[in-house]
Amino acid sequence: MTGAPASHGCLYGVGLGPGDPELVTVKATKILGSVPVIASFAKKGAAGRAQAIFDCWVSKTCRRLLLIYPVTTELHFCDSTYVAQLRGFYKDAEDSIAAHLLAGQDVALVCEGDPLFYGSFIHLFIRLRDRFRIEVIPGVTGVSGCWSAAKTPIAWGDDVLSILPGTLGQAALTRHIGTSDAAVVIKIGANLAKVRAAIAEAGRLSTALYVEYGTSEAQMITPLADKAAGHAPYFSSIIIPGHGRHA
Amino acid sequence: MTGAPASHGCLYGVGLGPGDPELVTVKATKILGSVPVIASFAKKGAAGRAQAIFDCWVSKTCRRLLLIYPVTTELHFCDSTYVAQLRGFYKDAEDSIAAHLLAGQDVALVCEGDPLFYGSFIHLFIRLRDRFRIEVIPGVTGVSGCWSAAKTPIAWGDDVLSILPGTLGQAALTRHIGTSDAAVVIKIGANLAKVRAAIAEAGRLSTALYVEYGTSEAQMITPLADKAAGHAPYFSSIIIPGHGRHA
Repeated sequence: MTGAPASHGCLYGVGLGPGDPELVTVKATKILGSVPVIASFAKKGAAGRAQAIFDCWVSKTCRRLLLIYPVTTELHFCDSTYVAQLRGFYKDAEDSIAAHLLAGQDVALVCEGDPLFYGSFIHLFIRLRDRFRIEVIPGVTGVSGCWSAAKTPIAWGDDVLSILPGTLGQAALTRHIGTSDAAVVIKIGANLAKVRAAIAEAGRLSTALYVEYGTSEAQMITPLADKAAGHAPYFSSIIIPGHGRHA
Repeated sequence: MTGAPASHGCLYGVGLGPGDPELVTVKATKILGSVPVIASFAKKGAAGRAQAIFDCWVSKTCRRLLLIYPVTTELHFCDSTYVAQLRGFYKDAEDSIAAHLLAGQDVALVCEGDPLFYGSFIHLFIRLRDRFRIEVIPGVTGVSGCWSAAKTPIAWGDDVLSILPGTLGQAALTRHIGTSDAAVVIKIGANLAKVRAAIAEAGRLSTALYVEYGTSEAQMITPLADKAAGHAPYFSSIIIPGHGRHA
């Protein structure tokens, strides 16, 4: 907002890119190297993938603020306990970030990929934007990382490209894939079998690629048809390339 | 390809991001500062937007290879003259890049945004990938630049996001917007009136934002409803935000 007192700190939403620390933007490295407080999301018991990226760029004296999710995929997101726990978590995160901003300290809240593209940053952005100045530093999305790692043009010419959360129902996934030239399914995790069935039903299994941890050291790429059934990490995507207009 | 002779140069497809030179990745700056040849696309009589971005990062001794489009929007892309001219242009571009690669020189072919996301790079990638080693460096897309500049979360939770070329017909645009939670229309240019009519027909005019040259010095953001009719630059987008799942 423009009406935030000048004595308050600024919140930077900083996109860290898809995984390779060198795929951070120059602007992001400057902010990470200069802010006094860096906040990041993490799962219980894990440092968070973001940390492996931003550790290269932060100043040694900055204060780390870890925002630990009380729950991730153990409960379904429609479960009322999940909703209540998440709401409490975001409220606590809001309060701890706001305390630094009120004290005049700038805070960088980092996230994988791009902050406003399916990022947890959005929940805090919505809660804080009326009280504080917020700057958003876009990042290379995880999906760009995946199709680049797979060296697969995703869309060109008149292609319609759909980004589809794997949490959707199978019928909805099939319908959207059927009406798109190109598609990327994100948030695979425990949804792998359902997503694969939807892609097969839409007749696109033969060109679909499965990409896990694209651009990071743990990267793994395989045709979806060859991917063993079972679980996939949350940070995996399935890409279905378009066909463009051929000049 | 893996079978390219080691004596041949490597082609780097380098994404330059949405416009702000600091939104280039660290990896891109390293490649731009070290390759002997930098190739870029441009319109006749214009240096090309890419040059304003990469001028900050290239070594002073590198050779510049300008690939000048014979035609951009003067002819319709279905016109046979357009198709023939573009095909000849890409063949010439392929030959001049291949000459450097065959001579053992690495070449960076730069493009705005992300190389494999609606980028002209794709046409040369397809032509050269069987003969030469190619590395793709993803970039921040123009659409990420637009929604970040507008400080507007584009999609979260279960949102389905569609990327729609403004070159599509009005009925197709209306249909895709109607079945998506969030959408970004790219390649606006002379399609502005048609795109606006499609968005109004889909009932989304009240939340749509028009963003021109997002993140660059010439940036302009306005509600689509307030945007005067007429022409828009090719590098403009219209963003229709999603609604997510609210925890």
